[in-house]
Amino acid sequence: MAQKVTVSIINVGDELLLGIRTNSHLTYLGKQLSFLGLNIGHCQVIPDQLQEIENSVKTAQLRSEIIIITGGLGPTKDDLTLEGVANALCRPLVYNELIFESIKKRFSQLGREISSIHKNQCYQLEGSKLLMNERGTAPGSIIITEKSLIVLLPGPSHELNPMFINSVIPYLKKHFRLSKKPAYVQLRTCGLGESSVEQKISPILEKYPNTEVAFCVHLGIVDVRISMKNEVSKPDYLDIIAGECRLVLADNFVGYGSVSLAEVIYHELRERQQTLAVAESCTGGLMGNAFTDISGVSKVFQGGVVCYANAVKILQLGVPEEIIEQHGAVSGECAIAMASGVAENLTSDYGLSITGFAGPEGGTKDNPVGTIHIGLYSPVGIWAKSVRYVGGRLDVKARAVNSALDWLRRLLIKGKNSFSGN
Amino acid sequence: MAQKVTVSIINVGDELLLGIRTNSHLTYLGKQLSFLGLNIGHCQVIPDQLQEIENSVKTAQLRSEIIIITGGLGPTKDDLTLEGVANALCRPLVYNELIFESIKKRFSQLGREISSIHKNQCYQLEGSKLLMNERGTAPGSIIITEKSLIVLLPGPSHELNPMFINSVIPYLKKHFRLSKKPAYVQLRTCGLGESSVEQKISPILEKYPNTEVAFCVHLGIVDVRISMKNEVSKPDYLDIIAGECRLVLADNFVGYGSVSLAEVIYHELRERQQTLAVAESCTGGLMGNAFTDISGVSKVFQGGVVCYANAVKILQLGVPEEIIEQHGAVSGECAIAMASGVAENLTSDYGLSITGFAGPEGGTKDNPVGTIHIGLYSPVGIWAKSVRYVGGRLDVKARAVNSALDWLRRLLIKGKNSFSGN
Repeated sequence: MAQKVTVSIINVGDELLLGIRTNSHLTYLGKQLSFLGLNIGHCQVIPDQLQEIENSVKTAQLRSEIIIITGGLGPTKDDLTLEGVANALCRPLVYNELIFESIKKRFSQLGREISSIHKNQCYQLEGSKLLMNERGTAPGSIIITEKSLIVLLPGPSHELNPMFINSVIPYLKKHFRLSKKPAYVQLRTCGLGESSVEQKISPILEKYPNTEVAFCVHLGIVDVRISMKNEVSKPDYLDIIAGECRLVLADNFVGYGSVSLAEVIYHELRERQQTLAVAESCTGGLMGNAFTDISGVSKVFQGGVVCYANAVKILQLGVPEEIIEQHGAVSGECAIAMASGVAENLTSDYGLSITGFAGPEGGTKDNPVGTIHIGLYSPVGIWAKSVRYVGGRLDVKARAVNSALDWLRRLLIKGKNSFSGN
Repeated sequence: MAQKVTVSIINVGDELLLGIRTNSHLTYLGKQLSFLGLNIGHCQVIPDQLQEIENSVKTAQLRSEIIIITGGLGPTKDDLTLEGVANALCRPLVYNELIFESIKKRFSQLGREISSIHKNQCYQLEGSKLLMNERGTAPGSIIITEKSLIVLLPGPSHELNPMFINSVIPYLKKHFRLSKKPAYVQLRTCGLGESSVEQKISPILEKYPNTEVAFCVHLGIVDVRISMKNEVSKPDYLDIIAGECRLVLADNFVGYGSVSLAEVIYHELRERQQTLAVAESCTGGLMGNAFTDISGVSKVFQGGVVCYANAVKILQLGVPEEIIEQHGAVSGECAIAMASGVAENLTSDYGLSITGFAGPEGGTKDNPVGTIHIGLYSPVGIWAKSVRYVGGRLDVKARAVNSALDWLRRLLIKGKNSFSGN
């Protein structure tokens, strides 16, 4: 039973505490480190202040073998990370002309002139190993102390992410004994509440000692993570438990890991060589975007129509004017006309449509804000259904998309199961 | 010179450290608290573990007057926040039958049966004030200790956000002396690098003592935050500085605060009563979605076509087949045909189009992965331009959208300035 190596993250940046930027670094690093079987035990988000940086490093050194610090490596005055870490470790900063040369080279390739401000970025901690930045000017670095390994990474994601993949992961693999399988198994579900999911799976978990379970709810989806207490070494055991849970979850099981509803649909359609098009009113492109986040989706996804104005519903999708007049644009009738219209006009096997009032304005007595009608056109039939959500505009949009995708997913899975005789 | 009241945030949840969920609570609370002139000084993200919760509360008590803890109030076994806080404060938990009754009532309205698992949610810290949860079962609470005010909030955003607005903000307003203006001014820019923005504005900042500046770069946008050291009391002063910065930033200034590019376009078009439609290939709906995040956008946004397949470009947008054959679907010629096609077919004054290779697959010798062509149709002319980005698929999509939006924004602003004689 190997104890897990623990990692502390320190995210430096006023913008994270002021709510201007979301801390996507924690999400990214958490996911990457989990794949390596490493555990983030703690994360601190701190302002661009020298004393805070120094204190956070000292705190992290007391608890973790690996410390990853993001942000504050840029050329501007609020970039204080190097200095803060130097203070915490009582190590000097040294000027490195090679960094300046490399920034100069990068700038000349881009046709830009280097300015003296970039000299600020040409320092490194004594004895540190520099990490090349393919996408920006600030190099990252790795410092080894008696207590821990400290990794400094630049703030912009498009600089941090490739540096982590190309330089940090190989370094960690070389210097730490990492497990090959993730330290947990995650099952994604849709269609059940958190407590219902727990009730379904807890008889299984009770059979197996030392299992730990955690739930995470987001926009109609419940993720279940199952892990073993303080162990990284029994992946097969976890797979058996996950398989049993999958069975009792039945059609509510979406997939393992963080597979999206759109990805499940993509794989199902690709297998049977069928195509899909979408028609969106209030969700305005969010559903199409979910598909086009998938590389290679062009094999099944034809495209869509964002029919915000009624004229677009009529002209681009052939929704009969009478339907809008008699039932309104937010109605099951209109949703059906949109779904069949988009499937026909974009020559697809399936058409999926959403029309509704996302709020905060709009809505009628029969269809208050949050009312969503979903239309589904398929080779075997056309249906509409309605759902209603409370919440802000962006939440309602996201839930509407998840609901529509889950409906199509269930139809495809069901078709598959009956076809194969299950 | 009033010292700012400082706030510590504790986000409880394995899913945040495993990279399964992004910590949107910090973003939300940071923004809300900034509006009140309150400062988040520090944030800890911790796992669902009793000892960690206890320790984090003790740490936060040493540094902040207000502590906000999110997550871990649900009914399942991994919900340990109440117990952890009770341990930290040495206060008992007491069962409250009224909570059970309120969950029961909520469930009966939803046509669901309450299960014994929900008894776990019916405890509160002795002497705490309960906060009603309009959207879920777990109540929030407020605890006053000698050192600080502690607020416990449920994990799901759609429960936390209304509880914060309806219960916590009124409570904070009553018990703390809050400033009326935000403690900073933010200018959003697009089109310049971080160091160029700093070089433009630093002569201004040097004129005013005690100003602090911070920069944040994301997907082609650079945000500049200007604040006064340890002061909350000089908003007018900040406004003057911000006004001067705006002037030197010229057309690169997008707006104050976190106004989006789409919002600027929306306001410009609404003012002149003009309309817009979009045609998207590789961005697949992301640009349309940016507009439909704006409440009331139907007054200017007609809709769009997601023309992922070439057949959709031809049939729905009238892109001539010869253009695709001769120049390819990823070309300036195709972008122009898409932009004018969508404006014509959706009867809009402006048409904005994107076609490109988002990667990681695809691309040609002339148009490698990351190449994006943008088309812009307007009452005064039609243009295409191309840009190229390195990065992952989702990054390239988001940058392409920002680039297209910024182009239209500049055209509208320019038109406005020449019209008014500036």
